[in-house]
Amino acid sequence: MFPYNAHNRRLLETALGNEPADLVIKDGVLMDVYTGRVVPHRSVAVAGRWIAYVGPDADYAIGDRTSVIEADGRVIAPGFIDPHTHIANFWNIADFLRYAIPGGTTTYVTEVEGFCFASGAEGFRAFLDQVRDRPVKIYCLIPPMVSASPAAAARFITAEETGKLLRDEQVIGLGESYWQSAILTPDDRILHLIQETVKAGKSVQGHAAGAADRRLAAYAAAGATSCHEAVSAEDVLNRLEMGYCVMLREGHVRKDLESIRPLIGTIDLGRCALSTDGADAELLLSQGYFTDVVQKAVAMGLKPIEAIRMATLNPAAHFGLDHLIGGIAPGRFADILILPAPGIMKPDMVISEGQVIAEKDKILVPLPRVPHPDQLLKTVPVPLIAPEKLTVPLAACSKPGAVRTMDIQANGLVAREGSARISSSTGTVLADPEQDLLKIVFIERVSGSGERFVGFVRGWGQKRGAVASSLVWDAAGIVAIGADDLDLVQAINRVTELQGGTVLTVGGEIVCEIPFPIGGYSSDRRIEDLTAEASDLQKTLGDLGSNLPSPRLTLETLASAAIPFIRITEKGYFRFRENDYVGL
Amino acid sequence: MFPYNAHNRRLLETALGNEPADLVIKDGVLMDVYTGRVVPHRSVAVAGRWIAYVGPDADYAIGDRTSVIEADGRVIAPGFIDPHTHIANFWNIADFLRYAIPGGTTTYVTEVEGFCFASGAEGFRAFLDQVRDRPVKIYCLIPPMVSASPAAAARFITAEETGKLLRDEQVIGLGESYWQSAILTPDDRILHLIQETVKAGKSVQGHAAGAADRRLAAYAAAGATSCHEAVSAEDVLNRLEMGYCVMLREGHVRKDLESIRPLIGTIDLGRCALSTDGADAELLLSQGYFTDVVQKAVAMGLKPIEAIRMATLNPAAHFGLDHLIGGIAPGRFADILILPAPGIMKPDMVISEGQVIAEKDKILVPLPRVPHPDQLLKTVPVPLIAPEKLTVPLAACSKPGAVRTMDIQANGLVAREGSARISSSTGTVLADPEQDLLKIVFIERVSGSGERFVGFVRGWGQKRGAVASSLVWDAAGIVAIGADDLDLVQAINRVTELQGGTVLTVGGEIVCEIPFPIGGYSSDRRIEDLTAEASDLQKTLGDLGSNLPSPRLTLETLASAAIPFIRITEKGYFRFRENDYVGL
Repeated sequence: MFPYNAHNRRLLETALGNEPADLVIKDGVLMDVYTGRVVPHRSVAVAGRWIAYVGPDADYAIGDRTSVIEADGRVIAPGFIDPHTHIANFWNIADFLRYAIPGGTTTYVTEVEGFCFASGAEGFRAFLDQVRDRPVKIYCLIPPMVSASPAAAARFITAEETGKLLRDEQVIGLGESYWQSAILTPDDRILHLIQETVKAGKSVQGHAAGAADRRLAAYAAAGATSCHEAVSAEDVLNRLEMGYCVMLREGHVRKDLESIRPLIGTIDLGRCALSTDGADAELLLSQGYFTDVVQKAVAMGLKPIEAIRMATLNPAAHFGLDHLIGGIAPGRFADILILPAPGIMKPDMVISEGQVIAEKDKILVPLPRVPHPDQLLKTVPVPLIAPEKLTVPLAACSKPGAVRTMDIQANGLVAREGSARISSSTGTVLADPEQDLLKIVFIERVSGSGERFVGFVRGWGQKRGAVASSLVWDAAGIVAIGADDLDLVQAINRVTELQGGTVLTVGGEIVCEIPFPIGGYSSDRRIEDLTAEASDLQKTLGDLGSNLPSPRLTLETLASAAIPFIRITEKGYFRFRENDYVGL
Repeated sequence: MFPYNAHNRRLLETALGNEPADLVIKDGVLMDVYTGRVVPHRSVAVAGRWIAYVGPDADYAIGDRTSVIEADGRVIAPGFIDPHTHIANFWNIADFLRYAIPGGTTTYVTEVEGFCFASGAEGFRAFLDQVRDRPVKIYCLIPPMVSASPAAAARFITAEETGKLLRDEQVIGLGESYWQSAILTPDDRILHLIQETVKAGKSVQGHAAGAADRRLAAYAAAGATSCHEAVSAEDVLNRLEMGYCVMLREGHVRKDLESIRPLIGTIDLGRCALSTDGADAELLLSQGYFTDVVQKAVAMGLKPIEAIRMATLNPAAHFGLDHLIGGIAPGRFADILILPAPGIMKPDMVISEGQVIAEKDKILVPLPRVPHPDQLLKTVPVPLIAPEKLTVPLAACSKPGAVRTMDIQANGLVAREGSARISSSTGTVLADPEQDLLKIVFIERVSGSGERFVGFVRGWGQKRGAVASSLVWDAAGIVAIGADDLDLVQAINRVTELQGGTVLTVGGEIVCEIPFPIGGYSSDRRIEDLTAEASDLQKTLGDLGSNLPSPRLTLETLASAAIPFIRITEKGYFRFRENDYVGL
């Protein structure tokens, strides 16, 4: 996809005027990201996939076959770069791009954790095949696969394999490794992966949520060079001062862009970038994906050139790619936006590698679906289970009359350890929906053994039925929550039958079913259908009593090692602070 | 020298407070190059060669054996980085460092052209051996060896060899390739070298003297990513806009720092760096080398933090080394300066990789001389010549009564083509010192054939005697200028006998003699002696009639492909604009 051929004789001959350009953009207002200036009357000449010239007059490069775009005073800006996103899950990549491209994002740096929890290094390669030869650049990061679930270890990509994968031009670094796993354990696995990555001259992405002072320093000392988890101006300053690139997140999971507002005009933002950290349907389908983030930055008071720098040159420089992308300069890929005016970030035209790929909302290039390898379609090796497998004997509780719980907090992400009073006449502990005490199940989908843990959760709110899903962050498993064992079993077994998906059952009936057969994480359905089904699931869960902001997101994250304080695994609850596994 | 070990368990344990630091710097004013802030009350903890912590209080890291430096309100700044210099010539590297280090430069990025013209890739490796295991970082660039002298081709480092050398961590890119040679010839040699370098993920240094608009674009399109030849604010803007890193030069050859004065406060200088492009004795012995450049930048009106950024983070980022050097942050090498106050750039203390290597002007570490390989001591394979070999028959002149000349301009660097009237009764053309018409000779020292060209020069001014030198930029040869053939022959033959050096003869007597036996470019004499001898040579040449600002520099550059418009080679004069070789 990126065979950089510096020996581009044609490119320099075009610049000199000895050969005609393929494309000339005439008389625009240049966003000069290198100096921070906005320069009127600039033209650009393109030869093949590359920029050959930028300057006051490119007419000399116009030949008989040269396409000419009259910018006519509109803005010429580099294509946007989203330096931290997750686009390997949920949607088909072709569908995703159909909505993301018209917003002007010509480079995506994505984590690939889902495919790898499903299928290890093979999953990573399968995703690379999905994103090669796309009309935009999709760079991949190798996931360190920090997991609370011990079963995930069998899927880990080794340091040796990491070294091999990093030879691919499209693989530009190590993905986010949650800081605790890098520095608070005696295990050197993550440090070895970091070492391999630095040796390959590539970047080490960080995730320093909640870390400060010594711990933030220790994480940088371990090798992390970015963080997208700053949630306040103080966080931003602390991270910048310790050498991190701060990727301000404004997307699906959180919206933190406001945290730089107090810093505008007071510090140099050259080491800050904008990012989505992944999009939901609203951001993608209605708001033009990353455009929305850049537009918000302008609305917040950043000069347009500064917001554009944070979406182009700054991330390119962070990844050591500023000789290829992130600016309108000779030798760079011709990834160019024509914006209607300096403050408006929705492009009239998106040019990628010299080709006009979108005008307004219309995509002008094919976005084919690529078949997935069979291996990625069979990633839920879980035996079908019977209801009695979910029985919880009273004796399993460590304290009489009480059971340990995960208490989901109001934002739906964080969960804290709790304890619920129970009474039982049968010798078993049952869900008690009236008191919002539900069963939560994690079954690992790695070994084929079906190893599982049945715990209890509060704060979910569902009064009837059960939901199960293979879309589980940072672990390979099925997570299920339910008000009764029969519905739980039916939902779980259906997910297994589908070899991935999200299933809602009520009273023995399947009420919602969204198959995610690709690695258990991704669907090939039309994105609009999928979005409608997801909305339907969300609404139905609401009707059943859940009043979380996004129960689907909550379900996805209940096993994630990224979010404190207690998570579920096949070995029991995992507690962050105690760094241990505990039962009921 | 730089085995970056990201798996630095000790480093992160020190940051966490689980192990004591080796060094703690207490309560300084931090130059936070990442945000552009000047932050009071900052402390730094160092473990081994690395920074473990920076923040409000590092006392927690102080153990029984921890050294403590009380910054006590003084400035903590990163060690300076000179991103473009030439330190392989003239002096022994150990001597050079003795003077350069107290000025605070802890990283040097140097061209290595001389050793390579003398001995090809072997010369490069020999220089690497000289600079390994030094108390500061010396990164090397592979010289593209653009030469006007055709004989130099036998010394060229091939693209394949370049690829191999680039695997060395200490080799961080391709050195300056004069733009004309990259883009104005059909020869792809330089483009191949660039391609090899980009493939290795390393940097391509440029030299775009005098290029603008299309040609500047073509050079960037060819792959050049820096230029240290901007001589005006317009040059700076043009280069930045086309994506170049601008290395502002203030050193031996030219002083161009003033060119950014009009830009201060008007553009982002994040892609500007300071550089020396090599030092003369004055800059090195009296002015602290690179400190002087940084101090001048402050004197010119740059804020101290901005000047420091241009001497630290900006060049580090340009070379993709900002995860290792250029800032005070965890995971970076502990290259730290203690400056007496924000505006004063001469450090009280220089720390390199955790070790205090200088206090005020006192060097605290050994700087051993390393023996040179025998091969580098025999690099002037030129047969001794007899006076008649320098005879110029009248018939050699293309026009009757006139001879083509190199006319040295007043600055001593540029030479223009000229024509001098001659009269001869002997059938040969003689030097005519009274009319400032001297003979100039170039003898190649590659093949052993002694191939040479005898031309004529004006503007040199010497009335008697002759000078010859193997210190020739961008070519392997001896250049000699003289008022009579006997002195010329004596000077040339003495240089050959010495296997390198600069020799001045007058009336058959050797008046000055400075041996440069190492590759013909470098001496092992004490730097003070060498400097005195060079001054003596300069003064004697002045006494003999030369009134050039630096006749030694002029002599060095008369064969260089870097400086227009006419140069001397063994094949005749080389003319830049015509791109041809011509005789008399």
